[in-house]
Amino acid sequence: MSSFGIHQIGEVKIEKESCCIEIYQPYISGLRHIEKFSHIFILWWISMRDNPTDRSNLLASPPKLEKPVETGVFSSRSPARPNPIGLTKVKLLEVKNNRLYIDRIDAIDGTPVLDIKPYLPGDSVKMSDIKLPDWFKNLKD
Amino acid sequence: MSSFGIHQIGEVKIEKESCCIEIYQPYISGLRHIEKFSHIFILWWISMRDNPTDRSNLLASPPKLEKPVETGVFSSRSPARPNPIGLTKVKLLEVKNNRLYIDRIDAIDGTPVLDIKPYLPGDSVKMSDIKLPDWFKNLKD
Repeated sequence: MSSFGIHQIGEVKIEKESCCIEIYQPYISGLRHIEKFSHIFILWWISMRDNPTDRSNLLASPPKLEKPVETGVFSSRSPARPNPIGLTKVKLLEVKNNRLYIDRIDAIDGTPVLDIKPYLPGDSVKMSDIKLPDWFKNLKD
Repeated sequence: MSSFGIHQIGEVKIEKESCCIEIYQPYISGLRHIEKFSHIFILWWISMRDNPTDRSNLLASPPKLEKPVETGVFSSRSPARPNPIGLTKVKLLEVKNNRLYIDRIDAIDGTPVLDIKPYLPGDSVKMSDIKLPDWFKNLKD
């Protein structure tokens, strides 16, 4: 087993009417030209689920289903997973110095951010080409 | 600074005419139902770039440009970045036991795999809504 050294490059800031990613001082020059992208991926550490119980979870029950299903954790976006790395595609609304204002993120204030990647056309899949299990088509709203 | 403990859940296998993700024994039950998805995200460790020089890199020059540009690393998908976590969206071709056969991955044989996530409709962005810097529109072929 190798060791994987991760550095926190910033954190999620949840404010009253906005949310943003604040990048720490040593990493700011890595943001050059980021404002030219409409969408970005945020990789973040799901610190609330960084505990032995949640990390040993290999099954998940997707929420909001009419009929509950127990699926593998790698077939779900459950936050309780062996490596609690969150992946969220967001819309980049505005860049102010070391702050990236975004439309939403399912993370709490202070959540560690690990990486930012630009969203490229190759990340997109045509809706008609995406195949999903039946239960994703029958979500309660 | 918190500490982030990452476990390797599997590895990339590059074979003569195919490539796959092999999931290690303790994590196999996490794959239940994965074959029902057409596309998945692979999160992997860019081990070739896990060294102090590549990890202190904050600028990148996107390849294949007619006119070179120096951009921030978070505005690029360069493998040389503070946290060398690779993110690749792939087509899931076939599942055989603990092996996920995929269409492609820009990783070498033996690369550590950290997480698998299903690709959901919310991960897709309409081509007409994706904004990119000019240089991405003028790629040499």
